[in-house]
Amino acid sequence: MHRYDCQNLYMALHGWAMHEKESGVIKNIKLAARKPGQKTTIIDVNGIRVGEGLIIIAGPCSVETERQTIETAIAVKNAGAHMLRGGAFKPRTSPYAFQGLGLKGLKILDKARKETGLPVVTEVVDTRDVSWVGEYADVLQIGARNMQNFSLLREAGKSGKPILLKRGMYSTLEEWLNCAEYILAEGNPNVILCERGIRTFETYTRNTLDLSMIPAVKRESHLPILIDPSHGTGLLSFIEPMSLAAVAAGANGLEIEVHIDPASALSDKEQQLTVPMFESLMNKLRKLRAFMDEPEMSSALQENMDTPIEKSAAQKNDSQDPISPLPGAFSEAVD
Amino acid sequence: MHRYDCQNLYMALHGWAMHEKESGVIKNIKLAARKPGQKTTIIDVNGIRVGEGLIIIAGPCSVETERQTIETAIAVKNAGAHMLRGGAFKPRTSPYAFQGLGLKGLKILDKARKETGLPVVTEVVDTRDVSWVGEYADVLQIGARNMQNFSLLREAGKSGKPILLKRGMYSTLEEWLNCAEYILAEGNPNVILCERGIRTFETYTRNTLDLSMIPAVKRESHLPILIDPSHGTGLLSFIEPMSLAAVAAGANGLEIEVHIDPASALSDKEQQLTVPMFESLMNKLRKLRAFMDEPEMSSALQENMDTPIEKSAAQKNDSQDPISPLPGAFSEAVD
Amino acid sequence: MHRYDCQNLYMALHGWAMHEKESGVIKNIKLAARKPGQKTTIIDVNGIRVGEGLIIIAGPCSVETERQTIETAIAVKNAGAHMLRGGAFKPRTSPYAFQGLGLKGLKILDKARKETGLPVVTEVVDTRDVSWVGEYADVLQIGARNMQNFSLLREAGKSGKPILLKRGMYSTLEEWLNCAEYILAEGNPNVILCERGIRTFETYTRNTLDLSMIPAVKRESHLPILIDPSHGTGLLSFIEPMSLAAVAAGANGLEIEVHIDPASALSDKEQQLTVPMFESLMNKLRKLRAFMDEPEMSSALQENMDTPIEKSAAQKNDSQDPISPLPGAFSEAVD
Amino acid sequence: MHRYDCQNLYMALHGWAMHEKESGVIKNIKLAARKPGQKTTIIDVNGIRVGEGLIIIAGPCSVETERQTIETAIAVKNAGAHMLRGGAFKPRTSPYAFQGLGLKGLKILDKARKETGLPVVTEVVDTRDVSWVGEYADVLQIGARNMQNFSLLREAGKSGKPILLKRGMYSTLEEWLNCAEYILAEGNPNVILCERGIRTFETYTRNTLDLSMIPAVKRESHLPILIDPSHGTGLLSFIEPMSLAAVAAGANGLEIEVHIDPASALSDKEQQLTVPMFESLMNKLRKLRAFMDEPEMSSALQENMDTPIEKSAAQKNDSQDPISPLPGAFSEAVD
Repeated sequence: MHRYDCQNLYMALHGWAMHEKESGVIKNIKLAARKPGQKTTIIDVNGIRVGEGLIIIAGPCSVETERQTIETAIAVKNAGAHMLRGGAFKPRTSPYAFQGLGLKGLKILDKARKETGLPVVTEVVDTRDVSWVGEYADVLQIGARNMQNFSLLREAGKSGKPILLKRGMYSTLEEWLNCAEYILAEGNPNVILCERGIRTFETYTRNTLDLSMIPAVKRESHLPILIDPSHGTGLLSFIEPMSLAAVAAGANGLEIEVHIDPASALSDKEQQLTVPMFESLMNKLRKLRAFMDEPEMSSALQENMDTPIEKSAAQKNDSQDPISPLPGAFSEAVD
Repeated sequence: MHRYDCQNLYMALHGWAMHEKESGVIKNIKLAARKPGQKTTIIDVNGIRVGEGLIIIAGPCSVETERQTIETAIAVKNAGAHMLRGGAFKPRTSPYAFQGLGLKGLKILDKARKETGLPVVTEVVDTRDVSWVGEYADVLQIGARNMQNFSLLREAGKSGKPILLKRGMYSTLEEWLNCAEYILAEGNPNVILCERGIRTFETYTRNTLDLSMIPAVKRESHLPILIDPSHGTGLLSFIEPMSLAAVAAGANGLEIEVHIDPASALSDKEQQLTVPMFESLMNKLRKLRAFMDEPEMSSALQENMDTPIEKSAAQKNDSQDPISPLPGAFSEAVD
Repeated sequence: MHRYDCQNLYMALHGWAMHEKESGVIKNIKLAARKPGQKTTIIDVNGIRVGEGLIIIAGPCSVETERQTIETAIAVKNAGAHMLRGGAFKPRTSPYAFQGLGLKGLKILDKARKETGLPVVTEVVDTRDVSWVGEYADVLQIGARNMQNFSLLREAGKSGKPILLKRGMYSTLEEWLNCAEYILAEGNPNVILCERGIRTFETYTRNTLDLSMIPAVKRESHLPILIDPSHGTGLLSFIEPMSLAAVAAGANGLEIEVHIDPASALSDKEQQLTVPMFESLMNKLRKLRAFMDEPEMSSALQENMDTPIEKSAAQKNDSQDPISPLPGAFSEAVD
Repeated sequence: MHRYDCQNLYMALHGWAMHEKESGVIKNIKLAARKPGQKTTIIDVNGIRVGEGLIIIAGPCSVETERQTIETAIAVKNAGAHMLRGGAFKPRTSPYAFQGLGLKGLKILDKARKETGLPVVTEVVDTRDVSWVGEYADVLQIGARNMQNFSLLREAGKSGKPILLKRGMYSTLEEWLNCAEYILAEGNPNVILCERGIRTFETYTRNTLDLSMIPAVKRESHLPILIDPSHGTGLLSFIEPMSLAAVAAGANGLEIEVHIDPASALSDKEQQLTVPMFESLMNKLRKLRAFMDEPEMSSALQENMDTPIEKSAAQKNDSQDPISPLPGAFSEAVD
């Protein structure tokens, strides 16, 4: 036993943890709350296990053409992405902005999936669309502006499909987890959370990407947490550093906008990576995640302070045995 | 030349970068602005070079007793910290809260410096104190609440001492860099910036730590940028993940609160690390920084998009030769 | 001509107005924008003319029982309210909170309307409900959390019903007016705006009621603007002063929560007025509005700086003649 | 006894007030807190009684020239202003912006006072300046950016001068009242509060003027509360409606920027009223305040819910007799 661990154990036994604000302070959540000892829930999307390792969802902001979508899909697949994103229904500030291709866009996504095998993540914006959009999508995304569209949350819950629930740009952790609770309460356990930046007084970045939600969600909920650095910053050159930061902080994945020709994009021109940028980024993300999974670094990815630390994704593949509570106690004091 | 680099060069030459909002949009800054090709300024503090590698400033929130301060100083020194922090003048919300030991505190810090060799960082809160506090401190800290105390900034400028300028909890990047400009305009080039969290609607964390300021400062200014995860989150178990995130995003350093016995602290009980926690964290930070300095990861630490990328700190030690602009052009397209 | 007016005319002619940020800066709005010289649009709701005089919408937060709703309706009618509010579908943070009576609630509202003659304002939260809820409601309310539920806005537009569009708690004026544009663009000109407080760092009040939206909406849009002081403050004793302030600033009306027995309410217990409080408030509101309509005060209610001032509601009843542009020019310089 | 009053008494006796969040929730304030039954403190400034009636402080943003200052002073005096404002030390975002005339400006203000008899309100920004600036000023203003400059607050407290303490643009009510406490704790009871707008996500207005601070301060503190609509909105045409709103909500006064020639001003060009605009506004403010002081309206100006209502300023001049607690009890239920 290392000297640190001895001291940590001493600390843990003598209650220093009492000085931190307690976890479990989020009101009203039952199904979304992490119970003591509970592991992060794995959401299985056609074999992709969200909550394990680092899952990358990539693709264009909007589905614009078959060529644009399929070429981007192939490129992100080749670069190592696990799922394809692409909006067929686009919530836009102005009614006169491009609103997405709708059904036509969904059919293009379907082709892209067939072409690449990548599961498709796409946004749904209307309660009436949940069931039929669900036939084209593998994951239904609920966007920031609809986070508290409670009717849509319930319908998403009834669908049973995996739901990617973005944090509202004005929403507290408590409100966000309560929105997850709406979905879970309908009997759908497949909720993936995604932080995408909040609205603050700072206008230099498009939003203020709140990476503290990574440890916050891990502490309060068993649901996996992704980060969207594209909307979270709105600035191309910020996507790499903020993505790396998210991985270092323990995010379960990233959702990143990639376009084969950003200059021609119909939306979010300024924040979509080119394919070469994405390839370069993927290379670094993989390396960093592997590094973070090394035993000496791994407590950075631990789930929360109150529960035995989970083994990292890399370790999980080797063994599904429950880990003993004692090492968890050591790690608790460190984090 | 790798395939990526070819594509990146193509991209760079064909102007995709035009689609990102331009850098150089911060109004009125002349001395604080990064000129094209300009490297990050190194601030030398008794031989500690802030702006190179990863600089860790650690120590108690407040100087409380000689024993507490010196024991903490020795412990953080042994764990690898580069400077000692400790408040002798504490800005507190209430006039009835502990306000710091004042001169007595400064004398304790002086002893701690002699004991450990660590340069001392301490806050100054009054124009009348700048010169004499400057005789005890190696770095004068200007706190978030005084960021726009322009008289204090000018006095700090006149002192010539290295200044650690925290971002106000309500301040935009533009305001922050203009405050740096106040100091620089007095002829003092030694300004270190430190992000410590901004005030938002989210109350789960004490503040919202805005890590996007790391790439933002690198893009707009040549001044080094540190992160304070202690005030930035206010939650003990968030300090490790947010510190690692800051390093991955390319921060030039961290300022972290450490106390030999947090439970007995007179301020910020809930966010000061114990010594064993800090030792464990330092271990990970060092490893992560070394990993980030590897050539394949290093563009994550590059300075900004418009200038040739600097070699990482690790590389700098080997060679001070200017690097050619061409590889910079390649990297630009990636970030 | 008074001396002031001479000077004002001089000022107007010599361009001082150039020093104010121009109106007309809201992007993308066509139908919602106030054209030069355009008067405030009057929305007719069963003979109640919103946009003229001071319109009071009052009633319980939620429809709970027939007795509660009808007694409150009679009481607010007797006190001088123009319309009845009451929620049958309640958007709630938690899925486990009271969600409203739904259809049963709408039937109760229908009875209350028959009993009192008051038009009914009630919220709609689902695109699937717009048409049938519209058969029970005289005005469909779109709540703050659904302000950017664009599908719902379009459906509301198609319904042709008068729509009360609340400002999102996180929404800029520009986003809000663009949401009105969504409704108008579907061919429905009957949009009433309602400010209900925004989310800020201040937690003393439930929200921060932004009364500057009164002159802001008047300057940028021809749509009438109401204020909701109940949600806007969340504090019973703040409703009177903020309501009076709204009237003094020129609001076209107020939406106020009133309950015959707030202590027993199933939602918003702390911010619903009792009937006697509402009666007392109505008395003051009427007096204040009559005072504000006096000629010497009336420019406070003028529409915007760029257009001839409208006569106050009181004056309008006497004459529908267009007013000459000259007095408008005088007043412009004053406001 | 009116029917309303009977019902209100009934309500008061039966505890409805229990449903409102309690007052007295502000932590740590002792001297700034309103005790049960305590009246608003009157701050006497050369015979001007702040806290009684409606006090108007007017004048230029900055003292620029003797002619500009004295002409403006005469004009605002003639229009009915009670005090003259004017900055000799200007806190500016950029070090290269006009910083004020300093001592020369103070001497000009002194002349303007001699010319008009108006007490002078001017900002102090440095602890070293408090005593000597206090020899020129009748009221020392502490600006928003220095609200938590605790050294300056203490020095202001020691000076014994009346202090106008602006709310920080990022400060909660609790922090603001604790800053007042800093001054009061030094033995200086002469603190006047002034709301000047907070920073939010909305950029249409320069700040978001938070008029709910009027009832909030009245509920929690005995100190008088003024409103600054010039900085609070930053838009010329918003000053009239927001000033009227402030009076209707019960503000003890206003601080308004007026300039004889705004177009030539060295700071805040866009928000300074011309003299004719100010004259017109003063005319309306006086009328509105007289109207609000009529017995039927006066509870709108009452101090807080927990204490017997004070008679309005107009009534006070006629009689200094304490009023009986019973009418207060009635009024409580109304507010």
